[in-house]
Amino acid sequence: MSENYSLGEVAAFLNAELRGDPQLRITGFNTLQNAGSGELAFLANEKYVSQLANSSADAVILSGRHASNIGGFSGALLILDNPYLGYAQISKWFDPTPQAHKGVHPSAVVDKSAQIGDNVSICANAVVDADAVIADNCYLAPGCYIGARSQLGEGCRISANVSIYHDISIGSGATIHSGAVIGADGFGFAPDGVGSWQKIYQIGGVVIGDNVEIGACTTIDRGALGDTRIGNGVIIDNHVQIAHNVAVGDNSALAAFSGIAGSSTLGSNCILAGDACLVGHIEVCDNVQIMARSLVTKSIAKPGSFASGTPLMETREWRKNAVRISQLDSMARRLKALEKSIK
Amino acid sequence: MSENYSLGEVAAFLNAELRGDPQLRITGFNTLQNAGSGELAFLANEKYVSQLANSSADAVILSGRHASNIGGFSGALLILDNPYLGYAQISKWFDPTPQAHKGVHPSAVVDKSAQIGDNVSICANAVVDADAVIADNCYLAPGCYIGARSQLGEGCRISANVSIYHDISIGSGATIHSGAVIGADGFGFAPDGVGSWQKIYQIGGVVIGDNVEIGACTTIDRGALGDTRIGNGVIIDNHVQIAHNVAVGDNSALAAFSGIAGSSTLGSNCILAGDACLVGHIEVCDNVQIMARSLVTKSIAKPGSFASGTPLMETREWRKNAVRISQLDSMARRLKALEKSIK
Amino acid sequence: MSENYSLGEVAAFLNAELRGDPQLRITGFNTLQNAGSGELAFLANEKYVSQLANSSADAVILSGRHASNIGGFSGALLILDNPYLGYAQISKWFDPTPQAHKGVHPSAVVDKSAQIGDNVSICANAVVDADAVIADNCYLAPGCYIGARSQLGEGCRISANVSIYHDISIGSGATIHSGAVIGADGFGFAPDGVGSWQKIYQIGGVVIGDNVEIGACTTIDRGALGDTRIGNGVIIDNHVQIAHNVAVGDNSALAAFSGIAGSSTLGSNCILAGDACLVGHIEVCDNVQIMARSLVTKSIAKPGSFASGTPLMETREWRKNAVRISQLDSMARRLKALEKSIK
Repeated sequence: MSENYSLGEVAAFLNAELRGDPQLRITGFNTLQNAGSGELAFLANEKYVSQLANSSADAVILSGRHASNIGGFSGALLILDNPYLGYAQISKWFDPTPQAHKGVHPSAVVDKSAQIGDNVSICANAVVDADAVIADNCYLAPGCYIGARSQLGEGCRISANVSIYHDISIGSGATIHSGAVIGADGFGFAPDGVGSWQKIYQIGGVVIGDNVEIGACTTIDRGALGDTRIGNGVIIDNHVQIAHNVAVGDNSALAAFSGIAGSSTLGSNCILAGDACLVGHIEVCDNVQIMARSLVTKSIAKPGSFASGTPLMETREWRKNAVRISQLDSMARRLKALEKSIK
Repeated sequence: MSENYSLGEVAAFLNAELRGDPQLRITGFNTLQNAGSGELAFLANEKYVSQLANSSADAVILSGRHASNIGGFSGALLILDNPYLGYAQISKWFDPTPQAHKGVHPSAVVDKSAQIGDNVSICANAVVDADAVIADNCYLAPGCYIGARSQLGEGCRISANVSIYHDISIGSGATIHSGAVIGADGFGFAPDGVGSWQKIYQIGGVVIGDNVEIGACTTIDRGALGDTRIGNGVIIDNHVQIAHNVAVGDNSALAAFSGIAGSSTLGSNCILAGDACLVGHIEVCDNVQIMARSLVTKSIAKPGSFASGTPLMETREWRKNAVRISQLDSMARRLKALEKSIK
Repeated sequence: MSENYSLGEVAAFLNAELRGDPQLRITGFNTLQNAGSGELAFLANEKYVSQLANSSADAVILSGRHASNIGGFSGALLILDNPYLGYAQISKWFDPTPQAHKGVHPSAVVDKSAQIGDNVSICANAVVDADAVIADNCYLAPGCYIGARSQLGEGCRISANVSIYHDISIGSGATIHSGAVIGADGFGFAPDGVGSWQKIYQIGGVVIGDNVEIGACTTIDRGALGDTRIGNGVIIDNHVQIAHNVAVGDNSALAAFSGIAGSSTLGSNCILAGDACLVGHIEVCDNVQIMARSLVTKSIAKPGSFASGTPLMETREWRKNAVRISQLDSMARRLKALEKSIK
């Protein structure tokens, strides 16, 4: 379980201005609304300013502007230019994730040709195949599988029941959540001319940079020829699909259900909101944001925000309006004809 | 395999009026169309009335109204007000799911600090971590993982290769299907001001009520601060995404590919049809239905049915109409101008 | 690792016309752009013709038409009517997938009543339950689970952490990727009349034909009554959902995130592009293509291509246009009124 810290330690770590008792013990982190005695909270979003006055938190991380208007709040203040980033940085101190025992659990199966670094935890029933390389300080949770010749950089955290196929390269500091699958075959088949599909064996791999997060039940397929590539610092949520030979640039963020079809490229510092998908064989440049549930059907060559989709309506209203979408071309032509006839 | 029962037993359990021989042995349950000798069927949907006359079922569950018009059907009748519910209630009698051996399989790895109730089955290669609590009559299938300090109430059924992280609380009677992941990190990151993402450690948990069903490859993330919450009697299909700090009210139903983004609330007795999704930080009240593939972008404060999306067309037609959607605002303005000029 | 072959062997296997040295050793397969010494490439798409002249490949598979116009390319030519199919056929020769050790790993748990064929590999921590039947030449990767009485035909390849429930029948030659789940309960519940859901036990199974590919994290649910059915030669990508009692005809292709809701039928030789979904209880005939992200809400009785959805716009433009969709019915009526008043 998480330990406890003095407010002075917290302030020093965050490089925050402290208004309050540096000896105060902090035992947890919570929301403004739910924080109680011994707990730290944060205020970053204008929407929650009104919760500050009545918060029972013992201390709050906030900006200078909000610090000058705390109403009846009587706890300590930790003043920072970017309180949301401060919260993010300190959050690790309160992470209840259990410490793993170092070493290889007797029920784990590690091929004798695998290279295992120092300080590695390989938990119950994990399997590491021939010639895999697991660098120092990695953690392999129960039931995960690392295929032959695959490599994990230092300090990777692989959760329970993750599957990593053969010949996959993952940089340092990766966090990969349960159910994720890295290196399954891309979806490649050629019509055989007589009505069936001829499988194209997927002989490429996957190359993943440093400090990447990969969500639960997310899939990143191996390349058909050459590798599927994920840059450094990329963050990927749950249920994301990255097809074969996709390339994702550094620090891009992919929310749940987003996906990129085969051979497409997503630039750096892009954001795919939930369920935003790219069709195959297109290129999206750096610094593009795609709104939730939008489908990108063409390359995008300039930074900006893009969207598709229709607004939510009561179903009764939607039925009346949606049917008109099938008449839109006709409506447009009739409108044009009217304009002409009036002129 | 399923056993066999007398028609009298079935009628008694369902509290049905029986027209037929109570000694008749029933060995299986099937559709009206496919049922044969020894088999029971049901009729609940008007659409299938015509199948009754020619059905070879030995007995059928149906309503009084349909019982008065059975054509040439010569089997027994079990008459009920709600035959669909009757079918659901009796279906368990014919469930071929194998009975599990009680006890801990020698290949399972159960931490000695874990508390295991009576009559529990822990199958091959399952792993139960430190201080986990598994109540009576639970079944843990092969390869599933229960993290440290997590708790399962009585009679939970956890399928093969399910992953449950640490500090998760699940009520009694849960059914959780293979590949589901409960308690992975929510997708929380703060921009660090120099182009990268600072991970926000997800220090909350997940609290799930009683009698919940969770489908295959469904993910329910742990809270960032405080818990993600699923009420009692909630039913969740495959490939569903429940993000951090979401709350779902009692008896709501979430179909495949539906999802709820971070910190949103779905009320009780709601239905999300397939692929219906909620964006983050909104509230949907009780008794709301969202149609298939609709995206809920704003809070909903009144019960009812809501939809978005566009109708299916032949691709040729769709191309002509879809392009007009990008011209809609212009069309609306031109229409208004015409109206003015005619007045 | 892949071996190496003479160009003559490759030409003979493909039945290709060879212009070049049949003794040349081929050690790998790569793209025109990336292929180097010892490597074979292919040219099938007009888009890449310009890469041929500068390619460093030692040999290229291409059509006769392209062979007559190779610019400065100095490597060998393998001339075929269908070079893409040729690439697909030869790709297996370069597949780096490790050869599995035959036999049952000591950590695997195989019930003594299971029938295991010749030449089968059952890897570390895999589990095979009672009365399962695993035919000759099957490969079960680490951590996969085969439920009671389920059957795999000859030469199936089941990847790590796949979950196959009880009473599932799979033909010969299946490839099933990690995280896939076959035979979980269909999503069947009846309202119990007092606000809760009564589970309908799913007593059917799943029957899958020969030579089927099933992607990572894909789910195929068991039938409620009777079986869910997948034909021969069907290819299914990642994150696909096949609900209970669906039937999919031979050689259909389902791309990532596509789905079919309960009791619907998809014909033979159909293509569902990415995220194309069918609602429940409809029938789609043979030879239908559904474009990406389209929702099929009604049966389709004639072959062809169908689509729904809206085009991508800059978000600013999209906001203006999307709001008009809620006004479409009113616009259509006003347009009609104008037309009348002008006549």
